[in-house]
Amino acid sequence: MTIGIVGLGRMGLSIAWRLRQAGHTVIGFDFSPEACAQAQEIGVDVVDTVATVAQKARILWLMVPQGQPVDDVLSSCKQNFQAGDIVIDGGNSYFRDSIRRHTELAKLQIFFIDCGTSGGLHGRDLGYCLMVGGDEHVYKKLIPLFQVISAPDGYAYMGPSGTGHYVKMVHNGIEYALLESYAEGFHMLKEGEFKNLDLEKISHVWQNGSIVRSWLLNLAHEIFKQDQNFEKISGSIGENKTGQWTVDEAHQEHIPVPMIEKALAIRAWSRESGGNYATKLVALLRHQFGGHPVKKLN
Amino acid sequence: MTIGIVGLGRMGLSIAWRLRQAGHTVIGFDFSPEACAQAQEIGVDVVDTVATVAQKARILWLMVPQGQPVDDVLSSCKQNFQAGDIVIDGGNSYFRDSIRRHTELAKLQIFFIDCGTSGGLHGRDLGYCLMVGGDEHVYKKLIPLFQVISAPDGYAYMGPSGTGHYVKMVHNGIEYALLESYAEGFHMLKEGEFKNLDLEKISHVWQNGSIVRSWLLNLAHEIFKQDQNFEKISGSIGENKTGQWTVDEAHQEHIPVPMIEKALAIRAWSRESGGNYATKLVALLRHQFGGHPVKKLN
Repeated sequence: MTIGIVGLGRMGLSIAWRLRQAGHTVIGFDFSPEACAQAQEIGVDVVDTVATVAQKARILWLMVPQGQPVDDVLSSCKQNFQAGDIVIDGGNSYFRDSIRRHTELAKLQIFFIDCGTSGGLHGRDLGYCLMVGGDEHVYKKLIPLFQVISAPDGYAYMGPSGTGHYVKMVHNGIEYALLESYAEGFHMLKEGEFKNLDLEKISHVWQNGSIVRSWLLNLAHEIFKQDQNFEKISGSIGENKTGQWTVDEAHQEHIPVPMIEKALAIRAWSRESGGNYATKLVALLRHQFGGHPVKKLN
Repeated sequence: MTIGIVGLGRMGLSIAWRLRQAGHTVIGFDFSPEACAQAQEIGVDVVDTVATVAQKARILWLMVPQGQPVDDVLSSCKQNFQAGDIVIDGGNSYFRDSIRRHTELAKLQIFFIDCGTSGGLHGRDLGYCLMVGGDEHVYKKLIPLFQVISAPDGYAYMGPSGTGHYVKMVHNGIEYALLESYAEGFHMLKEGEFKNLDLEKISHVWQNGSIVRSWLLNLAHEIFKQDQNFEKISGSIGENKTGQWTVDEAHQEHIPVPMIEKALAIRAWSRESGGNYATKLVALLRHQFGGHPVKKLN
């Protein structure tokens, strides 16, 4: 098949790579010349404008920042859309935006699919987890692509338009809370009653048979192998909007999410204060799985 | 080797089973006739008194409730202890108690090892995660036993007396927070904006390639396969003391652990109020991994 990808950053490029590995034709666009050069190296047909992608491909995968950029891309492509085209938003868009876009594009007979994409940097090699919302018959048509992009059994239809991004939003809310939960524990091990505990060893033994074993714990172990002191980095944790949306939606829906809320508040505090050992670990974990930047201290 | 096990409940019996499978001789004692009968079936030499275990075995594994029961067992065994005997406390004892017992027994030339044991019901087949504190030369002597009881690579020396139970205490604190974090997310998926999301499907797709994949998520998936409504159970969550100890220690050590603290407070609230969808899931997860009882509603 021929797939157009708009946005060739970390995730977009990895998806292009997986599609190319499976022999699909990929048309790509990004504003960054570096990203374009990298895409060309893996055989992506890089074009000069967003509109050209929509001209050359009947299936469009968007991997751009949420909000206005998604609407901008859709508006740039409008002239080249054809009835029956499929647009997949693989980014962290707000699910209500996705529902609106689905409705707007439906008027032009364009199908819009919201696809929550989890897996970060490791997704290129291991495959992604894809949470897909939108018209089910369109989802079914796209299964051969999802199979290539996802980890084994790592794609599923969540429901009507918006559900893919809703489930991904909640996934991210959980992720915020999990990260902070592990980090607090390691903070206690590092600075608590015993001063010489070996976090590399502890994170390793916990991977084998303990109740808390997980992929995030594996990543923590990789971090502790390199360093356990974190002296040269700030504990300031960045974020995208998904955590805040999760909390806002929960409030609106009268569902208590105190853990996710607390994890979000700690991130805000960490950016004001520089954080502590725990938030340094969270920042490093985000770097480890998503390539998110970690602030260096002077 | 010959190992005596005091306490043949869920965990003690599983450890006996793993030792028996590996051809070791196990002397056992429990107050419950049912536990004794089950132990006999797997070839444990069940004896009539605690003291008899200490008479017949030079290595003692304790799997009894924390606190006074541990001291009672040690006191009952005292008459039959021999210099050089090794006592391993595999339960969820308070690490300061373990340090005290280590000191007291050292005076009798008895070695005391504190061994945090994680893995729950599944440990019997998959092996446990063992966090071991105490004298390192004694730890080394016990490695052949730890290898049999643990999951592959699932045992490690944490440090001097008390560190094994300290690390296990923090492990449990993290566990409290992780459980509640997942549960909040699933609560939002169940009762939030979209009413027909399939939690069985979501928990399954998240296992494959997502950032939040973990062993607890696998267990949640097993639960959702059976039921997603939880209508007939209470959301009251039980607990042992490890969560409270974690929070108390953290306060004493001036380390903020707001996530663990919140998870602990939610458990207390759940017992007063009957909880909500999230706490029902936590109760079911605890049942799933540890066999902890779930209250039925009438």
